[in-house]
Formats: sequence, C-alpha cells, structure tokens
Amino acid sequence: MDSSFDAKQSILFSLRAAQLSKALWKSVEKDWQEWVKPYNLNINEFQILWVAHQLEGASVSGIAKFGVMHVSTAFNFSKKLEDRSLLKFSKKTNDKRNTYIELTEDGENLLLSILESYEKETFQVSEGALPIKELYGKFPEFSELMTIVRYIYGEEFMHLFEESLQSFENDFMDKDGTLLPADRSAK
Amino acid sequence: MDSSFDAKQSILFSLRAAQLSKALWKSVEKDWQEWVKPYNLNINEFQILWVAHQLEGASVSGIAKFGVMHVSTAFNFSKKLEDRSLLKFSKKTNDKRNTYIELTEDGENLLLSILESYEKETFQVSEGALPIKELYGKFPEFSELMTIVRYIYGEEFMHLFEESLQSFENDFMDKDGTLLPADRSAK
Repeated sequence: MDSSFDAKQSILFSLRAAQLSKALWKSVEKDWQEWVKPYNLNINEFQILWVAHQLEGASVSGIAKFGVMHVSTAFNFSKKLEDRSLLKFSKKTNDKRNTYIELTEDGENLLLSILESYEKETFQVSEGALPIKELYGKFPEFSELMTIVRYIYGEEFMHLFEESLQSFENDFMDKDGTLLPADRSAK
Repeated sequence: MDSSFDAKQSILFSLRAAQLSKALWKSVEKDWQEWVKPYNLNINEFQILWVAHQLEGASVSGIAKFGVMHVSTAFNFSKKLEDRSLLKFSKKTNDKRNTYIELTEDGENLLLSILESYEKETFQVSEGALPIKELYGKFPEFSELMTIVRYIYGEEFMHLFEESLQSFENDFMDKDGTLLPADRSAK
C-alpha cells in the first residue's frame, strides 16, 4: 500500500471518527443533562461553573475556549448564573479588556453538591469503560484521541485540560463512594 | 489502591471523556458542516443520505438510531430530501409499520459528488491523526472508544458501523487522491 496520503483511508478514518465522536458526545450530553437538571442548570451553565472553579478566575473567552462553546454562549449563560448569585464578574486592574468570572460561595457550594451527587451510574461512558479498567487496572487514557485533540486545539488547551483534572485530583477525596473536598476547612 | 469501584476515579474519567468527546465532536461537526454546505445540505441531511446509501434501504427509525439523532429529526429532514427528489419513501409489503428510505439516482449522484470533493484538509481530525498514521502505519482504530460505544449502543449499532465502513471500503477506490466508485458501470 502506498504510504503517501490516501484519500480513501483518510475519509474512512474521518467517517469512523465522526460516528464515534457523535455517539460518544450524544451519550455524554444526555447523561450530563440528567445529572445537572435537578440543580436547575443546563450543560453550558454547569461547564461554566466547573471551568471557573478549576481555573480559579477565568476570563469569559477562556471559559468559552476551554468549554468548546461560543463566546456569546459563555457570556449569556454566565449572566444567568450571575443573576442567581452563583458567580460574579470582575475586571483586573492590569487587564481592562477581559471580563473575569469568579464563583461566589453559593456557586462553590452548588458545584460541590453536584459533584457529591455523582453516582457510578451517572455516566454510561464510565460504566462502559469498566471492563477496560478491570483488564488494565485503570480507566482508558485515550492517548490517540488526546494526540488528535492536541493537534486541533493546541498546547494551551491540553495544558488547561491536564491542569484541571490534576486540580480536581488534589481537591477532592473519595469517602465510601461519595466525593468530598480533600480539606473542607481550607476553602 | 482499592480495586473496587472508586467514585473519584470514575468522575475523573467521565470528565475526561466528556471534554474529549465534546472537543472532538465539535471539531467534526464544524468541518462536516463546511464540507456539505456547498451542496445545500446540513449534517443531518448528509447523514441520512449516507446511511440510506450504506444500508441500502433503511427505515427512518434505523437511520435515526444509526445516525444518533431523534426519529423526528430523521423524519423531518428525510421529508426535505424527498421534496428535493433526493430520496423516496416506501413501505415494504411484509412490513407495513415502518417507512423505508431509498436514494434516487439524483441522491446517489449528489452523495458521490460530495465524496469526490473530499480533500485531505476536509477534516481536522484526519489531519491530526497523521502523526499516528506515520508512526504505526495506519490511522488509529480507537479500540477503547469502540468498547465504550459498544457498551452504550449495543452490538447491532457496532455491526452496522463496521458493515457501513466495509461497504464503503468495497464501493470506492482512490485515484490520484480523488475518491471514485470502484465500478461506475455496476451502478
């Protein structure tokens, strides 16, 4: 087989990636919606709370970029969260152009309640990955996917991605299957 | 580490899968939209044409299931494609309950034009996978992802998935970087 670029192989791969990523995302989207609905949030609003918490004061454009949503979507839903006193907008003295978002205490508490309500059946993707976890001793790391997403979204995106998972790793502990802050008093 | 189910590991994995699948799907969606826009189609319409071609006469519910869209979405966009004479609806004598979809010659020709217009820059996911292809000699097969999608959507979905890629593999050939039907005269 010719090792140079091959249209047929490329389109076959694209269609495979399209079908799998759509199937995966639609499942995640549905499960995520169900998870946050009792808190009167949609996915975008939850993602904004989550990213603002993880990045500890992110700009609206940063949230949009990291949350893979339009800036206008990030802004409009942030406004709604501000109306509910879950976050506040601010300007930095050394950066008047960007608007930054910080969670209020209510926002942090709401986010914590949602995380605490996580149960193993919450996401089907996680259930579906259990056989892999049993086989290899850990959940899949999707290294091929990571390589592709790195190409498309760049290093900064991946850096934020790893950082946010790492900070989650540090901030929370598992107690009898429920998620708790690693040190409640430190907050 | 406890080998039993661990909420923290599970939620970390879920958030990883959510972020990656959203990022991947949003990129695919954007590229796909750009690709089919010149043909006055949206993604759902293209998917209906594609699935109807691949499955050689699929029911509307079959298209919805395989295309990961609501039945009403599949039905409404199929109607629009029928108005443009790209497909026709039919009932089978042994199955009066389901409505089947078959591409017209115009529909087949349009689909072919779209596939022929595929260029290597069409999908960023494909470009992003090239380093993996160079390293391993083939595009990634996403076996971890496939395992998870199989768990969520079931065997039939995966069977159709593999079958559709296989029939594409058989039906088309690559000529100097352009996709052509393997045997134009057979159609």
